[in-house]
Amino acid sequence: MTYSVKFLPHNVSVEVDDNESLIRAAMEAGVHINASCGGGGVCGKCRVLIEEGNVEGGISEQLSAEDQDKGYRLACMSEIASDIVVRIPIESEIDTSRLNQMTGSRHTAKAVYANVDELRQDGLFIPPVEKIYLELEPATAEDNQADVARLINHLRLKHDEHRLTMRLALIRKISDIIREGEFKVTVTIIRPVREDGKNEIVNIEPFDTTDRNFAIAVDIGTTTVFGQALDLQTGEVLSQHGEFNSQISYGEDVISRIIFTEKGDGLEILHQKVIETINTILDKIVKKAGIGRHEVTTITLAGNSTMTQLLLKINPSYIRRDPYVPTSVMYPPFHAREIGIALADHTVALIYPGVSSYVGGDIIAGVMASGMYRSSELTLYMDIGTNAEIVIGHKDWMVCAAASAGPAFEGGGVKFGMRASKGAIEDFSIDPETYEPMIITVGNKKAKGICGSGLIILAAKLLETGVIDSRGKFNRNLDIPRIRKTDDIWEYVLVYKENTQIDRDITITEPDLDNLIRAKGAMYSATLTLLEEIGLTIHDLEKVILAGGFGSYVDLESAITIGLLPEIEPEKVTYLGNGSLLGCKINSLTNALRRDVANVVNMMTNFELASTTSYMDHYMGALFLPHTELNYFPKVKARLERLRKL
Amino acid sequence: MTYSVKFLPHNVSVEVDDNESLIRAAMEAGVHINASCGGGGVCGKCRVLIEEGNVEGGISEQLSAEDQDKGYRLACMSEIASDIVVRIPIESEIDTSRLNQMTGSRHTAKAVYANVDELRQDGLFIPPVEKIYLELEPATAEDNQADVARLINHLRLKHDEHRLTMRLALIRKISDIIREGEFKVTVTIIRPVREDGKNEIVNIEPFDTTDRNFAIAVDIGTTTVFGQALDLQTGEVLSQHGEFNSQISYGEDVISRIIFTEKGDGLEILHQKVIETINTILDKIVKKAGIGRHEVTTITLAGNSTMTQLLLKINPSYIRRDPYVPTSVMYPPFHAREIGIALADHTVALIYPGVSSYVGGDIIAGVMASGMYRSSELTLYMDIGTNAEIVIGHKDWMVCAAASAGPAFEGGGVKFGMRASKGAIEDFSIDPETYEPMIITVGNKKAKGICGSGLIILAAKLLETGVIDSRGKFNRNLDIPRIRKTDDIWEYVLVYKENTQIDRDITITEPDLDNLIRAKGAMYSATLTLLEEIGLTIHDLEKVILAGGFGSYVDLESAITIGLLPEIEPEKVTYLGNGSLLGCKINSLTNALRRDVANVVNMMTNFELASTTSYMDHYMGALFLPHTELNYFPKVKARLERLRKL
Repeated sequence: MTYSVKFLPHNVSVEVDDNESLIRAAMEAGVHINASCGGGGVCGKCRVLIEEGNVEGGISEQLSAEDQDKGYRLACMSEIASDIVVRIPIESEIDTSRLNQMTGSRHTAKAVYANVDELRQDGLFIPPVEKIYLELEPATAEDNQADVARLINHLRLKHDEHRLTMRLALIRKISDIIREGEFKVTVTIIRPVREDGKNEIVNIEPFDTTDRNFAIAVDIGTTTVFGQALDLQTGEVLSQHGEFNSQISYGEDVISRIIFTEKGDGLEILHQKVIETINTILDKIVKKAGIGRHEVTTITLAGNSTMTQLLLKINPSYIRRDPYVPTSVMYPPFHAREIGIALADHTVALIYPGVSSYVGGDIIAGVMASGMYRSSELTLYMDIGTNAEIVIGHKDWMVCAAASAGPAFEGGGVKFGMRASKGAIEDFSIDPETYEPMIITVGNKKAKGICGSGLIILAAKLLETGVIDSRGKFNRNLDIPRIRKTDDIWEYVLVYKENTQIDRDITITEPDLDNLIRAKGAMYSATLTLLEEIGLTIHDLEKVILAGGFGSYVDLESAITIGLLPEIEPEKVTYLGNGSLLGCKINSLTNALRRDVANVVNMMTNFELASTTSYMDHYMGALFLPHTELNYFPKVKARLERLRKL
Repeated sequence: MTYSVKFLPHNVSVEVDDNESLIRAAMEAGVHINASCGGGGVCGKCRVLIEEGNVEGGISEQLSAEDQDKGYRLACMSEIASDIVVRIPIESEIDTSRLNQMTGSRHTAKAVYANVDELRQDGLFIPPVEKIYLELEPATAEDNQADVARLINHLRLKHDEHRLTMRLALIRKISDIIREGEFKVTVTIIRPVREDGKNEIVNIEPFDTTDRNFAIAVDIGTTTVFGQALDLQTGEVLSQHGEFNSQISYGEDVISRIIFTEKGDGLEILHQKVIETINTILDKIVKKAGIGRHEVTTITLAGNSTMTQLLLKINPSYIRRDPYVPTSVMYPPFHAREIGIALADHTVALIYPGVSSYVGGDIIAGVMASGMYRSSELTLYMDIGTNAEIVIGHKDWMVCAAASAGPAFEGGGVKFGMRASKGAIEDFSIDPETYEPMIITVGNKKAKGICGSGLIILAAKLLETGVIDSRGKFNRNLDIPRIRKTDDIWEYVLVYKENTQIDRDITITEPDLDNLIRAKGAMYSATLTLLEEIGLTIHDLEKVILAGGFGSYVDLESAITIGLLPEIEPEKVTYLGNGSLLGCKINSLTNALRRDVANVVNMMTNFELASTTSYMDHYMGALFLPHTELNYFPKVKARLERLRKL
């Protein structure tokens, strides 16, 4: 059910879903309400008057009884329960027409998710690792064939399973398990990618355990690592958790990590660090999902080529040296234990294949998750993370390129940067008169920091209101307390410490903005260069897919305003979230993907931006908000000019 | 070149090869010469007179100058250098006709060996693990594919090698090795058994190392373990060595070993013990052959099912329990290190497949080495060892069975038992009047003990001369010093301590003979039972193949006299030696064998003697020399009767 919400005095209406919070409805409508704490009724600033209709909640000790009686509520605590009319108290003298020119409704990229039901309908819901329950004929004097032969012959004759193989560790336990289960056992089989490959029996358990079959998906980012536990019966995500990649203290980007591996036992250390991070995540998600480690049959991992080689303890040194050669881009299935992952002996680790030194398995995972390899629309796939990785193409061809962007989108190199978890500022608006902020956080909790999508919006809004200039520097002439210089660094106070979870003022600083500009500059210039190399322009794109762990709420106008995205119609843009993690999830659910992925990797052409002369020019030009060449962004240019005049 | 040797007063002649020793020629002719020390001129007893022709050597300080001038020589030190006539000094009064009735020329089983040239001619000399030298295109900015892809594509395009795979340990070193070798490398590839299987690249080395490719063959006997180092360029055996299986202190036969594994960490202990033995042998043969461990690409191992499971640390408990089920009879290739074998990371271990709990890989290795699976002659294959294993059949069908024989043939359970190495008494004759022995040892060294083939001959000769009876008990009425009772045990002194290497009298005792009788009884009764089960008799056999490490010199008449072999024409019998080791050697040289062996295993039908009621009756009947039922051995019966009358 949807309701209509009208905001006064702006006289702007918006349609919202049942139970939407009033403050989020206002943000969607582009209506600014002062709000400092992120939600939860702590600061009491988002006081609004319900003139018609009903909301649920909205009452806190920050509201006097008198106000409550008059119909005032806190917007952050009010859930919309009917069509309503809401009046926003405007402290400053500002006329309605000007207010309306300031606002602009939000265009969020449509989120797409992997659809298990679709896989099921298409008959593709066949996980790469399956459990099969067997009732073997007990051994007798007349039929005393070897246990392994009995098992394999049964699978061959009764289950049409062929080309079966197993490792020594399994052979060692088979006789005892068969007898423990009184010749009733469940075997776990990993399917080959090629139809004529070997099926490996990786585990055997007594009796029927087919209802307990779980998988783990892991995205190994340079900055953060995410894991999910999946139920292979239902395809459901049972639990998930993310942690900073603990390699981070040995270098923020892949190059500095590679350099670290070239000294002493640096490779061993970085390998151990990422394994530690993965094992920490495993601890949490396995516990939260209520599953045993021995019930996990696969773990699928994706990362860029350096992360993948560090995971596997393969010297990544040649990745950073001309001509930039990775050791491998395709890997056979491993046993998770072989790598050091704390799962059972039999758990199989599947590593996403990549394309080149700088277009790795994380991108391929995203391309697989996005489905662009099955589409006929010309698509731009952008993974927004520490590295700027871009894929352009469709089902018939694909090209890709990568540049180093730095970790700003993932909260790295940003003073109060954080991942998009509870308390992260994910949306923001600023009163153009008072410069008071409107803060919305993930989960409507007291603010803790700023996530990637919040940072994009922050930069855009600060630019639009002239708080910062196109170089990301604060306007030194604005004399308001929120803009200040601390330890010689200019910053804007988003949330004062009494309204935070961290007992410190949360600010955005000039170095933060500088890191953001370099990150978005790398993304944009990589896109432009790659399009140029294949003789296309922004206008040829039929679809843009954004991926990255920077936050689920991406305001497209803000992304265009800062020059991260080219000017493009919002309806062409979809948001995939963590494409790498999603690709790992889908890989856990359908074996068909593992066949397709090899084709995708083989059809992908890699461009080395480092050896493309125009790239550095494009990059230098992109180190402004939105760009040195404002003609690339005619609509942004027009809007900024219009807003500055108000 | 051959020479004729005539012995007087016997008036018996024999043809011998150039450089044959005179004492061996005498033994071959059935002429007894007293000889106590085994050779080397120590005892001086084998004094003979050269009446015509020449010998080389034969002079020692044991011969007086006068004797030397007369033409006396020591038979054990004389090499025949022309046609000669030799007179043996006969101390007792015995006429020539009687002498001649006592003698009988020896019928040794013809030895067969694997023929590398034959494999080469048939195009089958393709070892399962091959080295290929590659000159890769160096990486450039235009061609910066991953190192693994470069390698695999090169092998695919230039060497027609497909379905290639590799393990993590190899992927980890590939980039460094490629650059160390300046893109010139040698890869080691293990071939699959099935043509459509995967080829695993197991190693990569810088530059061209194809001329250094070696293999190890290992027979894991319950009593003894033998190893050989092979050159895969030439097929030559470079070195070999045998050791007692160090599991022996935990039980002499497979059943007692299995029982030991059922207590505490017994399985781990026995696994470690056999690995220690193998590693000890490896140390010696690798050193002797002058090869590095990293140059060994395969090790092929064969053993009975219990030995195989202990090698692989697989619980063998169900092997000894009704219905006698092994865990597996076929194994995929392993990495030698996985098992604990001290070879390089990349060395592949190939395990010979078996058929059942009591017909293991050692027998299949022998069947493969013997070539019986390619023959159309009905063949009896007997492996004479701790276990009595028998195969009957030809290229179209095969049946097999096994019984426990005990270790007597391999020197176990025999007071002075030893393997057929230097100093082992391997041939024997006894003067029917004086009961003085004629001793021949392996290598003509001073005696150290008795090997399996020597034991067979000893028992036969003692029986023929009435020194023992058909129950293997000494004739208490013979009053000669060599027959005596020590610590309540009757024995015959073969060599007095001054002529031994061990400074103790070497004797054969009644318990030794008892163990021999039980061992040969198991062999014979197993043969008889199996023939009976398939509706055949001894007379249907067209060929008999003897295998076992009991000694290279098998006197067929003696083997028949004690009832180990059925009465059969000597020309039907061939001797394979250690069939298991020979099978391992051939497996190292030709990949074709690995395909054939799967077919052989699949066509083989196993009979469980334990559940064949007639077996125990046959066994009880066989616990006599030659048998309770003398009509099974009409010729032996006639001969014994004739000899007793003399």
